[in-house]
Amino acid sequence: MTWNEQKVGAFVPGPRAVLSPLAEGALSGLDFAVKDLFDIAGVPTGYGNPDWARTHPPAIATAPIVQSLLLAGARMVGKTKTVELAYGLTGENVWQGTPLNPAAPDRFPGGSSCGSAAAVAAGLVDFALGSDTGGSVRIPASYCGLFGLRPSHGAISLAGARPLAPSLDTPGWFARSAGLLERIGAVLLPDGGGLSIAVGGGPLLRVEEAWINAQPAVAEALRPALARLEAHFGRALSVSLVPEGLGTLFEHFRCVQAEEAWVSLGEWVEATRPQFGPGISERFIAAKAMDPARAAAGRAFREVMRRRVHPLLAGGALLVQPTSPCPAPVLNAPLLQQDAVRAATIGVGAIAGFSGAPEVTLPVATVEGAPVGLSLVTAPGQDRALLATARIAADIVGMAA
Amino acid sequence: MTWNEQKVGAFVPGPRAVLSPLAEGALSGLDFAVKDLFDIAGVPTGYGNPDWARTHPPAIATAPIVQSLLLAGARMVGKTKTVELAYGLTGENVWQGTPLNPAAPDRFPGGSSCGSAAAVAAGLVDFALGSDTGGSVRIPASYCGLFGLRPSHGAISLAGARPLAPSLDTPGWFARSAGLLERIGAVLLPDGGGLSIAVGGGPLLRVEEAWINAQPAVAEALRPALARLEAHFGRALSVSLVPEGLGTLFEHFRCVQAEEAWVSLGEWVEATRPQFGPGISERFIAAKAMDPARAAAGRAFREVMRRRVHPLLAGGALLVQPTSPCPAPVLNAPLLQQDAVRAATIGVGAIAGFSGAPEVTLPVATVEGAPVGLSLVTAPGQDRALLATARIAADIVGMAA
Repeated sequence: MTWNEQKVGAFVPGPRAVLSPLAEGALSGLDFAVKDLFDIAGVPTGYGNPDWARTHPPAIATAPIVQSLLLAGARMVGKTKTVELAYGLTGENVWQGTPLNPAAPDRFPGGSSCGSAAAVAAGLVDFALGSDTGGSVRIPASYCGLFGLRPSHGAISLAGARPLAPSLDTPGWFARSAGLLERIGAVLLPDGGGLSIAVGGGPLLRVEEAWINAQPAVAEALRPALARLEAHFGRALSVSLVPEGLGTLFEHFRCVQAEEAWVSLGEWVEATRPQFGPGISERFIAAKAMDPARAAAGRAFREVMRRRVHPLLAGGALLVQPTSPCPAPVLNAPLLQQDAVRAATIGVGAIAGFSGAPEVTLPVATVEGAPVGLSLVTAPGQDRALLATARIAADIVGMAA
Repeated sequence: MTWNEQKVGAFVPGPRAVLSPLAEGALSGLDFAVKDLFDIAGVPTGYGNPDWARTHPPAIATAPIVQSLLLAGARMVGKTKTVELAYGLTGENVWQGTPLNPAAPDRFPGGSSCGSAAAVAAGLVDFALGSDTGGSVRIPASYCGLFGLRPSHGAISLAGARPLAPSLDTPGWFARSAGLLERIGAVLLPDGGGLSIAVGGGPLLRVEEAWINAQPAVAEALRPALARLEAHFGRALSVSLVPEGLGTLFEHFRCVQAEEAWVSLGEWVEATRPQFGPGISERFIAAKAMDPARAAAGRAFREVMRRRVHPLLAGGALLVQPTSPCPAPVLNAPLLQQDAVRAATIGVGAIAGFSGAPEVTLPVATVEGAPVGLSLVTAPGQDRALLATARIAADIVGMAA
């Protein structure tokens, strides 16, 4: 099936922001799109909300991450829709229209980087930039059947990107192959310099809580891919990383994110009283009311998670887990169900999110015809090794690398 | 209770081999004993079997490990009994008499370093040297209520020590305090030089198979100590390291050990046709008959274990597990029961044994009045950090450091 651009609705309305390559390079000949929270000089950054666009002047400078891609030879062909203020996981945008999920048209595309995922999945671009705080690259990648990377926190500059929760925010990108995902990483990621884990070296650690958290059909669908990886990497060892339960992890994550979101955006929300679509206003009300003690408890738990995860992954072990506990919710799913999915989804994503570790998702299976991803997580700073491992893993699982 | 030397029966019969300190040093004022498989110049090395003693001349040189202790100021006051050719875990020696277990007089002392453990537990010496292939320091330490270390494989020279299975053999030592265990390590262990894990830094990993393998009463008895460690180190994460089961691990370990034992000792056994006590002759018959394919499969599985364990521990994580699945068997335990205990005991000990990792056991509890130890295992080469962590752990658990 081919998709026409109008039907996909991945790009923000209005004239396309197009930027030519600034040099020949590793990405020459490739087109990409950029989530509309990264600045492009002279263009308004919409951040998914009409009141944001209305109250902000056009950007003065282009985000360095975009500049790096242009310098590597890629061409930017447009800005893509985002969930309002990047504060949601379904990909819904009631102001601009929710992008189509080309892999499962009756379902949400996932967000907040919904337009970027839709554009790549529909073949409108070769790759696209998104951002990820609680899953905003990983989840739409999983939902749309794409490869996606959330890099190590802090590995790549977020200058010129609107903040949500800076201690959790990262950029990220989508591609239809692990090989291209890695080529983009070669352009954007720091060199790594000294020590690096062996590519495909460490054992697989099957995070118990993440697998128990997944819908049985998802765990079942991912099993053949896991078995193929095990045949190559050795039997996955089961490890309990969150004995408190993913519900507890979600709650801590939510509180840290909410407190920071209010610091980042509260002043504007109070001054502007913007109109918000469903779910977004509730999240900002909760963010404003966040008890500092709860956020502090969340930060303390983040340290606990780091002390657990970092030593375990230091030697090159890879966490392996379902990227999301379920396929994309159907478009008419009740809000309450969406909230439950959100909690379970952020819970598993917070394993990497709280520990600052990079996570790559591979589109290895489908459930009821809708894609579900398998994630690999490794030690912070080992993004290049993770991408190389993902390429090998894709090959092992029998996907186009 | 004070023990008289005759009743304990820790030392080998005959005149005591006594060596004065060679200098003042870190161990000045301390007396130690040496398992009778280390050479002392001019003294026969008995290796627990009368035919061995009969067919070997007195040793020409003193083992360097003993020399190091003398140079550090310690005084050697005798050689201690060993299981015949160090090939057994109960501590029985029918030729010289099984040493008493001072902590549980109706039970085996554990072996093969039975005399060394008995001498330390009875207070006859401050510390003692043993050796450990499949548990021969850790098990008597656990059975007799002592601190004991199996160092990283290859960390300390075994020159002048009779071999059993060189790819698994290590020296080791016993003490009544973690502080002294560490002081001995400061004398014997290599400096470590460059990188070292943080002392008490990493998370605790509760090895599922080792805890399931333990008698419920043992797991129960160790729980309060584990809880205290968790209060300090953070909640232990449950990890499955041997999904194949400890029975499989035992079988692989047994085959590797048996093949090497025959290489080390078969020629002498064939030439001498020695008399052996119960269990020993059966083990050498099995060793002679070992199928090379089974030993090769064992070595392959050892590599699998190393690829699992090393990356997991590289960042400073500590495995925590029952040293032995049960307290010492009672002295009249049927041979079949002893064999079952041996399999279950070697199975858990092989986690460190096969991965070359150091293991320290702490005497934290008793079951039916008999001691049981809790083990900590860390990455190969991190012996000094492990001993420092054991000292901290002993303090946390409320033991004399």
